[in-house]
Amino acid sequence: MRIRAGRIRAGRIRAGRIRYNCAMALTLYWGAGSPFCWRVLLALEHKGLPYESHRLRFDKQEHQSPPMLKMNPRGRLPVLKDGDYVVFESVAVLYYLDVKYPQVPIFGTSPEEAGVIMRVICEFQTYAEPSLSRIVNAVFSDEVAGAFDELTDAMHVAGREARTIEGRLSKELWIVGANYSAADMVIFPWIQLLRRALNKTAAAELGARFLPMETNYPALARWIARIESLPGYERTYPPQWREP
Amino acid sequence: MRIRAGRIRAGRIRAGRIRYNCAMALTLYWGAGSPFCWRVLLALEHKGLPYESHRLRFDKQEHQSPPMLKMNPRGRLPVLKDGDYVVFESVAVLYYLDVKYPQVPIFGTSPEEAGVIMRVICEFQTYAEPSLSRIVNAVFSDEVAGAFDELTDAMHVAGREARTIEGRLSKELWIVGANYSAADMVIFPWIQLLRRALNKTAAAELGARFLPMETNYPALARWIARIESLPGYERTYPPQWREP
Repeated sequence: MRIRAGRIRAGRIRAGRIRYNCAMALTLYWGAGSPFCWRVLLALEHKGLPYESHRLRFDKQEHQSPPMLKMNPRGRLPVLKDGDYVVFESVAVLYYLDVKYPQVPIFGTSPEEAGVIMRVICEFQTYAEPSLSRIVNAVFSDEVAGAFDELTDAMHVAGREARTIEGRLSKELWIVGANYSAADMVIFPWIQLLRRALNKTAAAELGARFLPMETNYPALARWIARIESLPGYERTYPPQWREP
Repeated sequence: MRIRAGRIRAGRIRAGRIRYNCAMALTLYWGAGSPFCWRVLLALEHKGLPYESHRLRFDKQEHQSPPMLKMNPRGRLPVLKDGDYVVFESVAVLYYLDVKYPQVPIFGTSPEEAGVIMRVICEFQTYAEPSLSRIVNAVFSDEVAGAFDELTDAMHVAGREARTIEGRLSKELWIVGANYSAADMVIFPWIQLLRRALNKTAAAELGARFLPMETNYPALARWIARIESLPGYERTYPPQWREP
């Protein structure tokens, strides 16, 4: 358990330029490598919100322990606790954080922008996530050879969705408009996960038209570097990915 | 094309008790029987927003016409136009409407309620929708016999999710708390569609433990009746369902 971002002083928390009149109320339960958890870490860091960080081990089934199941009966992560209030499902957590702590908005600054951000998130979940999930799971469980045709189809879908995002990022710095938003936070962890999966030797053929991203998706590659250089990013990076 | 709800007078629109200072700006493009479109119709009626209603025929591919593809390149419905602004993906449309026209809120009145509403929507999309979609599509395309085992599994999932919702509705009038919200609007059309599918002769065995809902899911059945009695509901009802 570690306290992230900000200092507590006389009951007030100062995080970056924002001051919150609250006790240390936020606790995030997360698992390393989960793109869903990573989204929330990115949001908490971007908003400069102080939080207690509870990393749970999937391999030890810590996310399925009785106290965790009491908070989320589905036994999934992330789970965010804010005082006595509990919220889960990553997009709902991002949304709650934005309504509760609106400073540094992540769902836009106008109804029109809010609509586009949510639309891009919904599109990504509907059209990209199933294929990305299929590819990443197959690579990390060493099942590429047995499902090569299906994974090639999934890579076509992933490539098509990536080209749409590449198109957006070739015109703007962020996925929706001029600011880093929940749309970036939802999509970024999956792109990092995909890149990591495709870099495995077993996935070389599968990733041949995707990697290197600097050549095939230059705007996406610059966007990744942009997020990697944000303050607090290092605290969101999956710790086990640093291990050799 | 028909104008729904409210009267235009001297550039002002009066819809129920709410007054909007706007021209007739909202146009909804929808297809009958689509649960995604139905959600938005429910929201527009509940908010008392006047809108132009464009029903497109899926069987004539009207949703894939060049002007529609210009608004939504994926060629899916619903599409909402508000002046020059276009938004699609049903949950994003609900969200946009709520940020832009906050009177009669549908995403709650506190951050905590907003978080639960979005969480319940995300859970429904992730855990219930794929199975519901599988069942409904199979019944309406006469493919039940050939996929019976798979559909039985899907019915187990649907039944489990329905029991969770039944549990919520046995304690409260609406799916989240004391008010009709986006969570009800997202879930209701799917339940109606499922009920309609399971009432087909070919689905009799599949639906044996689900229907009649009055016996198996009494709180859900009362909730359906509650929504059916809301003002404007009749205008949202799939017109072809009235045909014999």
